[in-house]
Amino acid sequence: MNSRLLLSWKTLHRTWSDWRGSDSLPTISPDLPENESDTVAQLLAECVAARHGVVTARQHAVAVGELYLTLNATGRRHFLEILADRFAVDQDQVREVSRRLAQSADDATFRHQVLELREALISPRQQLLQQFNGLPQGVKFLIDMRAELLRFLPESPRLKRLDYDLQQLLATWFDVGFLRVRQLDWQSPAALLEKLMGYEAVHAISSWRDLRHRLEWDRQCYAFFHPVLPDEPLIFIEVALVKGLASSIQSLLSEKRTEIPPGKADTAIFYSISNAQAGLKGISFGPFLIKKVVDSLRQNLPNLKTFSTLSPIPGFRRWLELLLADDTSAPAKNALVTALRQAAQSLSIEPGLGNVMEDPRWLEQSEICDLLKEPLLSLCACYLHERRERDGSPLDAVARFHLGNGARIEQLNWLGDISAKGLRESCGLMVNYLYALDEIQQNIEAYSQEKHIASAPRIRKLLSEQETRQGPLSGLKQWGNRKGKV
Amino acid sequence: MNSRLLLSWKTLHRTWSDWRGSDSLPTISPDLPENESDTVAQLLAECVAARHGVVTARQHAVAVGELYLTLNATGRRHFLEILADRFAVDQDQVREVSRRLAQSADDATFRHQVLELREALISPRQQLLQQFNGLPQGVKFLIDMRAELLRFLPESPRLKRLDYDLQQLLATWFDVGFLRVRQLDWQSPAALLEKLMGYEAVHAISSWRDLRHRLEWDRQCYAFFHPVLPDEPLIFIEVALVKGLASSIQSLLSEKRTEIPPGKADTAIFYSISNAQAGLKGISFGPFLIKKVVDSLRQNLPNLKTFSTLSPIPGFRRWLELLLADDTSAPAKNALVTALRQAAQSLSIEPGLGNVMEDPRWLEQSEICDLLKEPLLSLCACYLHERRERDGSPLDAVARFHLGNGARIEQLNWLGDISAKGLRESCGLMVNYLYALDEIQQNIEAYSQEKHIASAPRIRKLLSEQETRQGPLSGLKQWGNRKGKV
Amino acid sequence: MNSRLLLSWKTLHRTWSDWRGSDSLPTISPDLPENESDTVAQLLAECVAARHGVVTARQHAVAVGELYLTLNATGRRHFLEILADRFAVDQDQVREVSRRLAQSADDATFRHQVLELREALISPRQQLLQQFNGLPQGVKFLIDMRAELLRFLPESPRLKRLDYDLQQLLATWFDVGFLRVRQLDWQSPAALLEKLMGYEAVHAISSWRDLRHRLEWDRQCYAFFHPVLPDEPLIFIEVALVKGLASSIQSLLSEKRTEIPPGKADTAIFYSISNAQAGLKGISFGPFLIKKVVDSLRQNLPNLKTFSTLSPIPGFRRWLELLLADDTSAPAKNALVTALRQAAQSLSIEPGLGNVMEDPRWLEQSEICDLLKEPLLSLCACYLHERRERDGSPLDAVARFHLGNGARIEQLNWLGDISAKGLRESCGLMVNYLYALDEIQQNIEAYSQEKHIASAPRIRKLLSEQETRQGPLSGLKQWGNRKGKV
Amino acid sequence: MNSRLLLSWKTLHRTWSDWRGSDSLPTISPDLPENESDTVAQLLAECVAARHGVVTARQHAVAVGELYLTLNATGRRHFLEILADRFAVDQDQVREVSRRLAQSADDATFRHQVLELREALISPRQQLLQQFNGLPQGVKFLIDMRAELLRFLPESPRLKRLDYDLQQLLATWFDVGFLRVRQLDWQSPAALLEKLMGYEAVHAISSWRDLRHRLEWDRQCYAFFHPVLPDEPLIFIEVALVKGLASSIQSLLSEKRTEIPPGKADTAIFYSISNAQAGLKGISFGPFLIKKVVDSLRQNLPNLKTFSTLSPIPGFRRWLELLLADDTSAPAKNALVTALRQAAQSLSIEPGLGNVMEDPRWLEQSEICDLLKEPLLSLCACYLHERRERDGSPLDAVARFHLGNGARIEQLNWLGDISAKGLRESCGLMVNYLYALDEIQQNIEAYSQEKHIASAPRIRKLLSEQETRQGPLSGLKQWGNRKGKV
Repeated sequence: MNSRLLLSWKTLHRTWSDWRGSDSLPTISPDLPENESDTVAQLLAECVAARHGVVTARQHAVAVGELYLTLNATGRRHFLEILADRFAVDQDQVREVSRRLAQSADDATFRHQVLELREALISPRQQLLQQFNGLPQGVKFLIDMRAELLRFLPESPRLKRLDYDLQQLLATWFDVGFLRVRQLDWQSPAALLEKLMGYEAVHAISSWRDLRHRLEWDRQCYAFFHPVLPDEPLIFIEVALVKGLASSIQSLLSEKRTEIPPGKADTAIFYSISNAQAGLKGISFGPFLIKKVVDSLRQNLPNLKTFSTLSPIPGFRRWLELLLADDTSAPAKNALVTALRQAAQSLSIEPGLGNVMEDPRWLEQSEICDLLKEPLLSLCACYLHERRERDGSPLDAVARFHLGNGARIEQLNWLGDISAKGLRESCGLMVNYLYALDEIQQNIEAYSQEKHIASAPRIRKLLSEQETRQGPLSGLKQWGNRKGKV
Repeated sequence: MNSRLLLSWKTLHRTWSDWRGSDSLPTISPDLPENESDTVAQLLAECVAARHGVVTARQHAVAVGELYLTLNATGRRHFLEILADRFAVDQDQVREVSRRLAQSADDATFRHQVLELREALISPRQQLLQQFNGLPQGVKFLIDMRAELLRFLPESPRLKRLDYDLQQLLATWFDVGFLRVRQLDWQSPAALLEKLMGYEAVHAISSWRDLRHRLEWDRQCYAFFHPVLPDEPLIFIEVALVKGLASSIQSLLSEKRTEIPPGKADTAIFYSISNAQAGLKGISFGPFLIKKVVDSLRQNLPNLKTFSTLSPIPGFRRWLELLLADDTSAPAKNALVTALRQAAQSLSIEPGLGNVMEDPRWLEQSEICDLLKEPLLSLCACYLHERRERDGSPLDAVARFHLGNGARIEQLNWLGDISAKGLRESCGLMVNYLYALDEIQQNIEAYSQEKHIASAPRIRKLLSEQETRQGPLSGLKQWGNRKGKV
Repeated sequence: MNSRLLLSWKTLHRTWSDWRGSDSLPTISPDLPENESDTVAQLLAECVAARHGVVTARQHAVAVGELYLTLNATGRRHFLEILADRFAVDQDQVREVSRRLAQSADDATFRHQVLELREALISPRQQLLQQFNGLPQGVKFLIDMRAELLRFLPESPRLKRLDYDLQQLLATWFDVGFLRVRQLDWQSPAALLEKLMGYEAVHAISSWRDLRHRLEWDRQCYAFFHPVLPDEPLIFIEVALVKGLASSIQSLLSEKRTEIPPGKADTAIFYSISNAQAGLKGISFGPFLIKKVVDSLRQNLPNLKTFSTLSPIPGFRRWLELLLADDTSAPAKNALVTALRQAAQSLSIEPGLGNVMEDPRWLEQSEICDLLKEPLLSLCACYLHERRERDGSPLDAVARFHLGNGARIEQLNWLGDISAKGLRESCGLMVNYLYALDEIQQNIEAYSQEKHIASAPRIRKLLSEQETRQGPLSGLKQWGNRKGKV
Repeated sequence: MNSRLLLSWKTLHRTWSDWRGSDSLPTISPDLPENESDTVAQLLAECVAARHGVVTARQHAVAVGELYLTLNATGRRHFLEILADRFAVDQDQVREVSRRLAQSADDATFRHQVLELREALISPRQQLLQQFNGLPQGVKFLIDMRAELLRFLPESPRLKRLDYDLQQLLATWFDVGFLRVRQLDWQSPAALLEKLMGYEAVHAISSWRDLRHRLEWDRQCYAFFHPVLPDEPLIFIEVALVKGLASSIQSLLSEKRTEIPPGKADTAIFYSISNAQAGLKGISFGPFLIKKVVDSLRQNLPNLKTFSTLSPIPGFRRWLELLLADDTSAPAKNALVTALRQAAQSLSIEPGLGNVMEDPRWLEQSEICDLLKEPLLSLCACYLHERRERDGSPLDAVARFHLGNGARIEQLNWLGDISAKGLRESCGLMVNYLYALDEIQQNIEAYSQEKHIASAPRIRKLLSEQETRQGPLSGLKQWGNRKGKV
């Protein structure tokens, strides 16, 4: 990093006539202390003023951008605060134009004043952000700057306005129309695959060997790229080509599985979707990537009939624990309580969901498994369907994503993920969200209008069994009730 | 074109589950008559509503975009008018938010309401424009749409607001930080070179032979490209590598010239800069391209010391004719009048600037040339320096561009362009704007602050001769006088 | 060219330690006179000896190769003669090894001596030729050297042995397994397309406009490339996608034709196959290219059912004139004589085949056309089938190529090529050779074993009509009769 | 592998008209037993005969080549034996032509008969080998076939003749003029880098982390590629950029080393050269690769002044042990004997070179190190200079390679490689062979003519010390003495 900076500092003062020593930037301490703020603000102001023309102004912005890279975390936070505080719109002007617009009589005046207002609302810091695009890999610079800003946000909430500007700019630049899907495989550059290993957020890639395994011919990986960042995946998705719905992530990723020729597979399992750029938070690529990958798979492998995920249920266990701590009573809850008690006895441990889950011996005892299975599946179906946000969307983030994209809850998988993480987050359960191609559009419509959640009949059966027994769980069904919000 | 459309129409109704006949678009007549406007507006409204999710909404926008391509000029104008008229911001909402903002008391409220106002100011048509990016070559679609819009503008001024949105969007997308310079040569795709021939606006390329000639090793061509449009140059510049300042475009482009090895050249002459995309009007790339090309040339050919243009003076003759028709008297004008009279006599034609210029025989008579030379050069220096817009910038568009970029007027070239066009527009004169690398920044500053025009001493001498003779020409020196505005 | 040489000469003396002036080559006059032969021979001998190692020897060979490029035609011929004369195998050694081998008693000795003999038969000039591969674009250098050698061959037959070595080397290097088919289109580099225009040997490409026309979507062009020469097509083929057999080259190439979408075409017409490298004479790529192009077309355009040529019949008219001058008599010949006489009368010109053909007015008179049509078609069928080389293969080179590849004579086209060349060479007739995919292998077998020529029934009918009339034409059927050998 | 074969078998019978079941190959058992030899021989004979034309013959050869891939090791050996035995030249014909040539009287006859003889000496198996080039990745197929052949050679010496043909063909195809140097770095495809890890023969790459480390910016890797095999390095070289001669491989490869910016390095250390293709044995690329890499480094990093290896001395310890077992006496040997005795005593182990070297504790005891250092360095200098093959070239293969390329012995490095392998093979010593650019050509000449070994003065000093003491070591100096041949 240092040496790259060294090189960059050289380019810093390059001007039309070449290096000009007198132009050199003042020295700024790495944590950008208060007494140096004015200097930085002046440098930024010069970029905005562009006294020596737009070309030179960009070069100055590049120099300031590289100065930013020399700062430590404290310094960078200060830098961003300067941007947020001192390069906002002109309040008086905006107020004045707004006042006139609010009073505008006829259409023509209104339209004219809208343009005027828009101009007034373009803040100097928006202009500065765009100028940073002149840095080598300028977009990546801005993405990383936003990732840092998001980390500073809790302690420095006034950065919110700067974040708004950054997100707007990046959302326009990263319009999905520009993105290209590329398949990543063992022929991809090592540097790119290394990034993949770093970004994978769902099921960690443990080694190059594991990675290679995920790029075998019955496994595939696709990513979205922006043409200006050919080495930076924005989001990627991992797919397994199998026969029938996959129900266990451990079986799916086992190195000892029997491969089937891709042409023989009838099902594509999306088992991991990971965003690769924290700085693009809030800009949604997922649904488009899924669509593109489904299209591409259908075209290349016409035998594929089923497109489904094998997904974690990250909030299930936390919700269960709240439920168990609660004083409600319901058949499934009661059955679980009984089963947990028996399991604890068999294992000679203290009773409690946590105690059982943390003691993996239960997985080897088929009786305990049998005891726990039914109540956990029933309660999981409840969790996915009934636990909602205030606006009616499911509490579970993964469910929210796939149901919002038109998938349906197809199957709950007992012992689908028996890793420590799987037990800790979802008592070992996994779920398949099915993308039934001829239902997706209706599902989206029903979901977006009534927050209706589509499910396979067997899932609905699990639910209705609960309901007919009229346990108080049904009382938890209202959207957005506080207790459920775990 | 037809067949491409045919293929596109097929993709039009592709949805998640594949073709759905029922989804098919209503038939729209090529000139989109009034009674079909509502249908089109409804289609557009559906894209905005995105009832079936963002993925499907984009697909619908693509379908509507392809419908646009089936329309004729009349239909397209109507289409754009629908976009401009019916998908504007919500006036009531904007007025209300503006009103509140104008009254906002404290900073926090103000900032909050600025965000609210910004959201309110995003019109549905802005969203639609961005959705069109989903078309194959979507950006090119929008660029071409704007090019058409600009043609319709004189007869349909209300399209101005749509143009504002389009320009904003394109200006953000075509930020110069994304552009890459590429050299075009004889190894470039024929399709690309053919475009070059079509776009060249300064000195038309007459044939493939002429084109090849301009790509020889002592000639070069550079263009800016956006990564998403690798086959579409945005702006290009043609360069000749020579010894000393070139003074005649005919000599420069002659096929019989003696080539010098590029390593021996000391001067780079920029003899043509052409914008290639009418739809990117108002988005400035020129100064950046010149800077990049100068940098690249300096690095590859360290012997190059001088960077200059050989430029036309498009408005000179028109201004001259106004001057001659005027009743003012000035030494240079008088000298010219005398010279023209003698020339007409020699050629046995009616006197008058037009008559002489249209009769190319004068070029072969050295006495006539000698007579005309000095007064025309003097008057041309006056024209370039003294004829200003109201804001003080030069009347001549080419001068405005280069002087604004920090170049200076270096040399006036007698008989620099003796083509019909050259005689018609500038009485055969050309000018060199010199990019003196160590003066550019000061020149820009002086120009932008005081509209000071930088000139070589010999040019300033020509001017001062005029002034000391105290002819009435000096009376024309005020900025923006109406008569001079030709 | 000069400047490239200039640069090359610089690299000439580059050695491990860099430029070494003392190493510089002696000056050789452009026509390499006798008294400088020894110097050149010595330089070549040094390359063979490789006193300073193989790396340096290659560099010296490069220097000598570049010296060759400075020579004029005379000098180059002398250079090649030096190579041919002075760098042959050691006669005594070869004789001695041969003698021993001829007497070798047992198998083991024989095999050992075969290896010895092979080594002895590798001439120094073979080693030198391979060393020239070190030149930039060394293979192209050798191809061009052989093209020149072939031009010198008539006057300097002793170059034959050098040609043998060169052809052997190039045949090994240009093994068809290395070649790659690439489609050329309007996106191909201009420099490459320019070469295409230069190499086209069948129907000259008159302009860039004509070329572009031949690359439209219902026209295609494919070429073989060697990976080390990505800019040099070796052989190329032009294809038209049409409905039904094309019968007229003028209609096929007309700019006013109605295009049909490629997906609708049922027939691919190969209307031109041209070798691009004279220096690869005798190394056959044609059959492989046709196979590859047929495979590629079938895969991409499954509607294509028919693959055929539209070919010239270059020797037809020459043969006809010999026939008419002859004293034989046959119905078809007699009919032609009568028709020509009537045609001459109508046109008021002297009678004779040549006089009529040179006077294109006959094409506009349908009665003359009707008169000439039948006898010319009959005689043409005779010509293609009956006129044979001594080894039984057809006299007509184009027929020989396609029939040898397994095609059959499908259709004779009256007025198929009414260009001056078409009338001069084949009285305006063209022929379709059909590649019927399920017959090709049998056709090849029958042709190679019995020189059987495959024909469509209508062609065989034309022939049998001739035969049943028992005209003396049948007397010309013997293979290789001298008179027929035109 | 299986699945690839499956796909290949499908293409096997593709003919002009498409799949032809009747054409299918007979089934051959994986070990190709004697009774199936005739069938295979017939298939091969059909390829040679090319009854259905050259295109089909190639397709048949491809089918047979793919049959070869289905065989196991035994079957492949049989296959190669069939090729070697049954597709040789026609003995009678060769004898006859040789006999005539031996008697040829004049030059012209001789030359004519040389051509005839050459034709007669082209065996059918040479033709077959070339036909296999039609396989996908045909060249790689032949390279791998030869690698297998070389493994079979000891048990089946008659394969030698086939090897001769294969080597000739590959040597022509892999002419160094075709090869391109490419730098491999972290941006290279993972699949390619994985191969690198597999092929590295000098200092094994232990992990991806180690590999990445060797591709850092002060480390570089270059490889030769043939254009038809872009994914297969032929030979590669690893370079470290450092200050001064590197003397220890452990320091050089340490992850904790301090990197210096490449521009600051003055020395390039070639620390590993590995052939990647066993099937190209005997075809020399090394000297050319070194030259290219030196050229490239000099151009990109002008600060580099020194180009040297850091090389193992693989045969040193084996030779030492012979020397110690011998009854000769010499000062250095005696000193070593004494030192070893003391070392054994200090370590409380049995005396003997092996015992000490296998007990790495001695490395930590500076007194033992001091004792052993001088005698080992002296004896190593002797070993490198004096131990020769019968033809005078050094016994040590690495020395032979670099000295033959013009390098000189520059420095012996005490404890240069203290890995188990380093101690086992060379008692921990390493050597720098220096490529002094202005001496290379003379060194090569002196070496090739007189087998003179170039050394730095300090090395010559070590040697002369030995000599002046007139120990019996000097008695071992004769070239090629048997005892020394270890």
